[in-house]
Amino acid sequence: MAKDKLIGVDLGGTTIKFAILTKAGEIQQKWSIKTNVLNDGANIVPDIVESINHRLDMYQLDRDRIIGIGMGTPGTVNRELGTVTGAYNLNWTKEQQVKTAIEAGTGFNLTIDNDANAAALGEAWRGAGNNDAEVSFITLGTGVGGGLVANGKLIHGTAGAGGEVGHMVVEPNGYLCTCGNRGCLEQYASATGVVRLAQDQAEEYVGVSTLKKMIDDGDEVTSKIVFDLAKQGDFLANQVVNKVAYYLGYATATISNILNPSAIVIGGGVAAAGEYLRSRVEQHWTTYAFPTVRASTRVKLAELGNDAGVIGAASLANQ
Amino acid sequence: MAKDKLIGVDLGGTTIKFAILTKAGEIQQKWSIKTNVLNDGANIVPDIVESINHRLDMYQLDRDRIIGIGMGTPGTVNRELGTVTGAYNLNWTKEQQVKTAIEAGTGFNLTIDNDANAAALGEAWRGAGNNDAEVSFITLGTGVGGGLVANGKLIHGTAGAGGEVGHMVVEPNGYLCTCGNRGCLEQYASATGVVRLAQDQAEEYVGVSTLKKMIDDGDEVTSKIVFDLAKQGDFLANQVVNKVAYYLGYATATISNILNPSAIVIGGGVAAAGEYLRSRVEQHWTTYAFPTVRASTRVKLAELGNDAGVIGAASLANQ
Repeated sequence: MAKDKLIGVDLGGTTIKFAILTKAGEIQQKWSIKTNVLNDGANIVPDIVESINHRLDMYQLDRDRIIGIGMGTPGTVNRELGTVTGAYNLNWTKEQQVKTAIEAGTGFNLTIDNDANAAALGEAWRGAGNNDAEVSFITLGTGVGGGLVANGKLIHGTAGAGGEVGHMVVEPNGYLCTCGNRGCLEQYASATGVVRLAQDQAEEYVGVSTLKKMIDDGDEVTSKIVFDLAKQGDFLANQVVNKVAYYLGYATATISNILNPSAIVIGGGVAAAGEYLRSRVEQHWTTYAFPTVRASTRVKLAELGNDAGVIGAASLANQ
Repeated sequence: MAKDKLIGVDLGGTTIKFAILTKAGEIQQKWSIKTNVLNDGANIVPDIVESINHRLDMYQLDRDRIIGIGMGTPGTVNRELGTVTGAYNLNWTKEQQVKTAIEAGTGFNLTIDNDANAAALGEAWRGAGNNDAEVSFITLGTGVGGGLVANGKLIHGTAGAGGEVGHMVVEPNGYLCTCGNRGCLEQYASATGVVRLAQDQAEEYVGVSTLKKMIDDGDEVTSKIVFDLAKQGDFLANQVVNKVAYYLGYATATISNILNPSAIVIGGGVAAAGEYLRSRVEQHWTTYAFPTVRASTRVKLAELGNDAGVIGAASLANQ
């Protein structure tokens, strides 16, 4: 029987998402299970194996049709050895042998990469990237990650740090980052970065603002609240969003000037602010993009939402 | 007879350099001719053809042994069509059909790319890059150019502007650039940029300085003079070099954070300042490089000098 199906796995700290896809990247079945991080995350790999085997039986899918499994994971990935280290949200503090365990348990080949790279491949293949060979992806969540596709391939770099766009310095001598440097993009454009900017600007702001009142009252402020208030015309919130958009515009322009992708795609939770955010980022991006780049690269929103991870992961198995 | 020789051509505004190389990139013969830019540069392509044919006869090299010709050229290159536009230092203002003319005149296949990309390939293959698949190259001359190799291939981007590192904005709202944007690296780290920085800083400087005296006297100041005076302890010159090193350190760190190459290689005329410049660039680079990048990427000086162009050009024919 011809091999014509891919399995994509998107391993996250809360849920593990699975999908069975055609070779062309169409999702045919999709499911998820809770991530069991107890016991140093020792159940995670067995849970993945069991869930895949169970679903293949349930769907009565001939195992000979499976080309392989691709998986995106948090942490630092050794793609050759198939190991993962430092995936703290999985409680995987020590090195985990993921590839051999999943291959032994399922009988399929496993290809792994980090989650931001998998999502980038997904958007490049079936999302905003339109299957182009030159696509850059930036994801704004708790942190800021990225995945860069050039000549049709992910850029991993010499030690796997290629695409670490969250740690581009956008404000020399700016906020201290968890990485030890100052002024990393992550400190200004992640969900926590947006809130931090709001708190800082609230201190200096003296006008009327619901956002300022919330912060002064000690209410919990999220990046979503900041964006929602900005859309409603709150002056301070608007100022914060403009600052976030400046840093994102500057950073995406720098990525664009270096790689000249056909699209620089913005995804992740913060990007849920949608066209409101995109158009403002693009405004700043236009200021810093080289003319040829301005004419050939597009600033786009991610299109696949939560499916980017499983689709991109599946594409790993397709190579 | 087995094909085992490459021809590399480095087309410049003053000279055209040629070399015959082994498949492994060893130069066996090297020569150059003056670039005749008269007559809208109409003689350039015929001169290249004639020079190659003449030398092959002179060396009595069997033409069947030639794998092909690779050429680096100024201007905007259409690699598929083999055309060049906007090579102003050659007086090629209109589109030039280079590939078909050289192929017809020599009987060999021609592959072309822009000169910075060719030099990058040369350094990546046989120079400071040690034939690694991940090498970034930045060249500091009249302008600032670059070539980026990832996964063993040049990054051209969707419209050929990949690697335009001279137009990364390193100083938002900084000096106006010829490209129309403000604060491009080229305005701070090219030979003319160094002089401009010196002139600007001289205006504000009130201490004793040979550099200041030269500028105030209207003497011609070059970037070489600025570096030489800095080495001799001139306070103002030292301040200028430190500023240049800051911008270069910041820009190379950003490139490194995005691509995580094994080496970021600095070449071109300004890099003739050697280890004196490199070590100062590295100092600033260290401040802005992501920890994993700091541990795995190296800031290096180019090693091939003027040969980078012909060697890299030859490698184009080897693919």
